[in-house]
Amino acid sequence: METHSGFSNGPERLSLRRLGIDTYREFVVYMHRECEVCRSEGFAVRSRVAVRLNGRSIVATLNTVSDGLLGLHEASLSEAAWIALGAEEGQKVEFSHPQPLASDSYLRKKVYGGGLEAGEIEQIVREITGGLYDDIHLAAFVTACAGDRLDLAETVALTAAMVKVGESLKWTAPKVADKHCIGGLPGNRTSMIVVPIIAAAGLVIPKTSSRAITSPAGTADTMETLTRVDLSIEDMRRVVEREGGCIAWGGAMQLSPADDILIGVERPLDFDSEGQLVASVLSKKIAAGSSHVVIDIPVGPTAKLRTMEAASRLEVRLRQVAQAFGLQIRILQTDGTQPVGRGIGPALEARDVLAVLQNAAGSPDDLAQRAVELAGRLLDLMGASNEGQGVSVAQGLLASGAAWAKFQRICDAQGGMRTPGTAAYRADVVAKRKGRVVHIDNRQLAKIAKLAGAPHDPLAGVDFQAPLGTPVEKGQPLCTVHAQTPGELDYALAYAQAHGDIVGIGE
Amino acid sequence: METHSGFSNGPERLSLRRLGIDTYREFVVYMHRECEVCRSEGFAVRSRVAVRLNGRSIVATLNTVSDGLLGLHEASLSEAAWIALGAEEGQKVEFSHPQPLASDSYLRKKVYGGGLEAGEIEQIVREITGGLYDDIHLAAFVTACAGDRLDLAETVALTAAMVKVGESLKWTAPKVADKHCIGGLPGNRTSMIVVPIIAAAGLVIPKTSSRAITSPAGTADTMETLTRVDLSIEDMRRVVEREGGCIAWGGAMQLSPADDILIGVERPLDFDSEGQLVASVLSKKIAAGSSHVVIDIPVGPTAKLRTMEAASRLEVRLRQVAQAFGLQIRILQTDGTQPVGRGIGPALEARDVLAVLQNAAGSPDDLAQRAVELAGRLLDLMGASNEGQGVSVAQGLLASGAAWAKFQRICDAQGGMRTPGTAAYRADVVAKRKGRVVHIDNRQLAKIAKLAGAPHDPLAGVDFQAPLGTPVEKGQPLCTVHAQTPGELDYALAYAQAHGDIVGIGE
Repeated sequence: METHSGFSNGPERLSLRRLGIDTYREFVVYMHRECEVCRSEGFAVRSRVAVRLNGRSIVATLNTVSDGLLGLHEASLSEAAWIALGAEEGQKVEFSHPQPLASDSYLRKKVYGGGLEAGEIEQIVREITGGLYDDIHLAAFVTACAGDRLDLAETVALTAAMVKVGESLKWTAPKVADKHCIGGLPGNRTSMIVVPIIAAAGLVIPKTSSRAITSPAGTADTMETLTRVDLSIEDMRRVVEREGGCIAWGGAMQLSPADDILIGVERPLDFDSEGQLVASVLSKKIAAGSSHVVIDIPVGPTAKLRTMEAASRLEVRLRQVAQAFGLQIRILQTDGTQPVGRGIGPALEARDVLAVLQNAAGSPDDLAQRAVELAGRLLDLMGASNEGQGVSVAQGLLASGAAWAKFQRICDAQGGMRTPGTAAYRADVVAKRKGRVVHIDNRQLAKIAKLAGAPHDPLAGVDFQAPLGTPVEKGQPLCTVHAQTPGELDYALAYAQAHGDIVGIGE
Repeated sequence: METHSGFSNGPERLSLRRLGIDTYREFVVYMHRECEVCRSEGFAVRSRVAVRLNGRSIVATLNTVSDGLLGLHEASLSEAAWIALGAEEGQKVEFSHPQPLASDSYLRKKVYGGGLEAGEIEQIVREITGGLYDDIHLAAFVTACAGDRLDLAETVALTAAMVKVGESLKWTAPKVADKHCIGGLPGNRTSMIVVPIIAAAGLVIPKTSSRAITSPAGTADTMETLTRVDLSIEDMRRVVEREGGCIAWGGAMQLSPADDILIGVERPLDFDSEGQLVASVLSKKIAAGSSHVVIDIPVGPTAKLRTMEAASRLEVRLRQVAQAFGLQIRILQTDGTQPVGRGIGPALEARDVLAVLQNAAGSPDDLAQRAVELAGRLLDLMGASNEGQGVSVAQGLLASGAAWAKFQRICDAQGGMRTPGTAAYRADVVAKRKGRVVHIDNRQLAKIAKLAGAPHDPLAGVDFQAPLGTPVEKGQPLCTVHAQTPGELDYALAYAQAHGDIVGIGE
C-alpha cells in the first residue's frame, strides 16, 4: 500500500526536569497529561514512548501528572532512564512513537507453546537488551520459557544470543578454570574457597559471580562484605594477571546483559526456567572466556533441584549445550538436604568462609569438604592432577594455608580486605519440643533470612545451629535471626512463627 | 518454632502529599529513600508495601525519591492508590510489610505446568481481586494459562471463582437473553442491533459489554459514542425494566472484577488464554444473571480463531463450562475472513450500526445479515420462535423499524442519544496496482486503527472500502485512516506503508 498524507511534523520536544524518582530498572517518563506532546502524539498513561537525547534512545512507559508537579512544557524521567540517556537538567528531549517490537510475534509464538528459530530468539534477546521490553513482556517471556518449555536447539540459540549481545573476555592462558553452583542451598559459598585453591595451584580462574537472584546471598554479595567486587574488565584483568584468580561481580561487565535484565523480573517472580537457567549459566562462562568448568548441583527436597531425576535432566541439558560451544564441563550432584555451614546471608556466610580458609577450630567442615571436592574435580578436569588425585591436592592447598594466603592477596589486589560487622538486632528461634532434627526446609530458612533484610542489608540473615540429626531440648535455639532494623527482625520472626515446620523435630 | 523477640513496634506513619502521578491501574507508593519508614522497615525501591488508611488496605510497589519531591516525613500515592484508599491531603498513613501471597505456590505450580485445584484457583483470584498481584505476577499468571494450559476443571473453577468474588445480578424474568462475540473481527458490532431486535420481540436482554481489550473498539466504546454506557446496577435495572434491554459498560459493575484486572495486562501483552477467555466470557454472563446466550465465533486466517478446528475446540470448552453452570448456549461459527461493515473504530462502527437500524440505502448488508442471524438463533433458543423461524422473525423486526425505534428508546433511557463527529485528520491508503482484492489481514487493519488512536480517541479508526473480490484500479483508495492528531495519523500511515500486504491484490 502507498499512503497519501500531507503531514510530516518533526518529533516533539519538552524541557527536562529531574524529579529524582527511582523505579529500580524500569524506564518511566513523566509528562503533564495536557502537554503538547501528549496532545499531538496521542500519548496516554501507560503508552510506550521513544525518548531520544544526546544521541541515545530508550523506550519508556508514560506516567502522566495533572497539576503542579510538571508544567506543560516539561517532562521528567525515572532515575534509571535519566542515567541511561546521560540527561541533564533543562535539556530539550524528543519524544515519538516507538517502532512496534519486531519480536512481538515470536514472543507470542512461544507463549502459545510454539518453537522458536535461532534468529527469532536472537531478535527477542536484542530487543530485551535494547530496553524495548517492559516488565510485563519480560515476565511473559520468562513464564513462557518456564519449566522445560525451551528445547535443546532453543537453549543453544538463547545461550549464543546472550553471548553475542554482550562483552566477551579473552585470556592468554590456554586453559581457563571456572565453577558454578546451581542455586537453592543456603550458605553454599564454595567459590570463595575454590578460587584461592585453584589459583594457589598456579591455574587461571577469573571468577565472575552474580548477586543474589532469589536467595539471601550471592557470591558477589558475600565477597563484597570482605573486599571490592565491582571491578571493571580492566581491573579484573590486572587482578588475574597478578594472582591467577579473582572473585568479581559480573553484573557491571555486560557479559550477558540480557540475562541481567531477565533476572530483574525473575527475582520478584521467584522462578526461572531450565532453558534460561542453562543459558544464563553457560552464556556467562562462555563470555568470561572460560574453557573448563565444574558445576555443583545440590539436590534435596527443598533445594532448587528437588530430585535426582530433575538434576540429571538439567545435567544432560548442560552437557549438551556446553558441547555445542566446546566448553569442557564436569557436573557434581551434591547433598542439598540442609544448609551448608552455619551462616545464611552475606556477612554470616563470609564468616564461615574465612573460618574454613584459616583452618580455624570449629570451622564448618561440610563447607570445607564441598569446596575441596569441587576444586579437586576442577584440577582433574584441567589435567593439573592425575585423574582422581585432585581432591587430595586441593586438600593439601587448603590445609597448608596456601589457599588462605592466596585469598588475602586476591582481596588486596581487588582493593583491600575489610571486616564485616555484626547486625544491630538479633533474636533466637527456639525448639518447641525435645527431640532430634529430622527435616530442614531450606527455602523457608532462606525466606527468613531475606525477610530479615539479606542481601540488601549484608549483615542480616540467619545463623543456623541445628543441622540434621542434632539432638535438641525444648527452648534450645535452632537459629538466630540477624537484622539491621526492628521492623525486619519482627517480620522475619513472624514468618518463622507462622511456619512451624521449617526445622522438623522428631524422635 | 517459637520466637523470642523483645520488639513490638507499631506500624510507621507518614503524612500524605498528593503528587498526582497517574500510573493507570498500578498502585505505587512514593517515599523519601532516607525516611524513617524505609529505614526502620528496610523498604527499598520496588519493595511491596502494605498501606492502610481510612479502614482500607492496599499493597503498593515502592518508588523512592531522593531530594526535593518529598520530605522525610511525607509519602505520596499513585492516583489509582489515592482513589482506592479514599485518601486526603495531609492524612497520616500506616505502612508495613504485606503478608506474603498465599497463592504464590499455586502460581508457581501453574507456571511449571502443574494442575490447580478449585480452592487454589479461588485463592489466586481472591488475591488478584484484592490488588495483591503486581503487574509482573499478573503477566506470569496470564502467560502460565495461555493456549490450552487450563483444563476443563480448572476453567470451571476459574469461572466460578470470578463470579464468586464479584457482584451478581438477579432478574425477575424467567428467561434472560444475552449474546457474545469472541473477538478479532473488526467492525463486527452486532450487539447494538441484536439487543433492540430481541427487546422489540418482548424479551429481556440486559447486555453488559466490555471496552476494547486488544481491538480498536469494544461494544461499550462504540455505544458510548451514541449514549451513556457507564450505568450503575440500579441505572441498568431501571433501563431494562422500562425497555427490556440495554447496552451498558460492564466494567463499573464489578461483575467479574478479577477479569477486569487481568485485562489490564492482557491488553499490553495482546494475548490471552483459552481457559481465561472462556472464564472471562461465561463468568460475566453468569454474574449478569443470563440464562440463554448466543455466542458468535468468527473464524478466519487473521481472526482470533484461525481455523475451524481451533474454533470447534473452543466451542466444546464453552459448552462444557456452560453446562456446569446450567447456562443454555448456542454457538455460531461465522465468516472471519474480512471486516464486517466498513467502519473500524468506535464512531465509524456506530455509523454503520445506525445505517443498518435505519434500513438506510447503502447500509452494510453483511453487518445486518450477521445481526439478524444471531438474533434469530437467540429467539429460537429461548423458545420465542418455532425452531428455525427465529431468523425471519428477527428480519421482520429490523425491516419494520421496530428495532430502530427500540434502539432510540434504549438510548433515551440510558441518558439520551448523541451524534458522534468526524475525526480532524484523514488520509487515504491507496492500491499500488490494478487487480482484485484477494486477501485482507484483519489484525493489521485493526492495528492501523489502533495506531490512529482508536479506541481512546473514539473518532479515530479506519474506514474500509475494499472487501474481498472488489476490483480496484492503481491509486484507488482501499481505506481511509481517521485520526485526531497528526502524530497518530502519521504513525498509522507509516505502519500501513511498512506492511504492504494488509490488503492483498491479485488478478
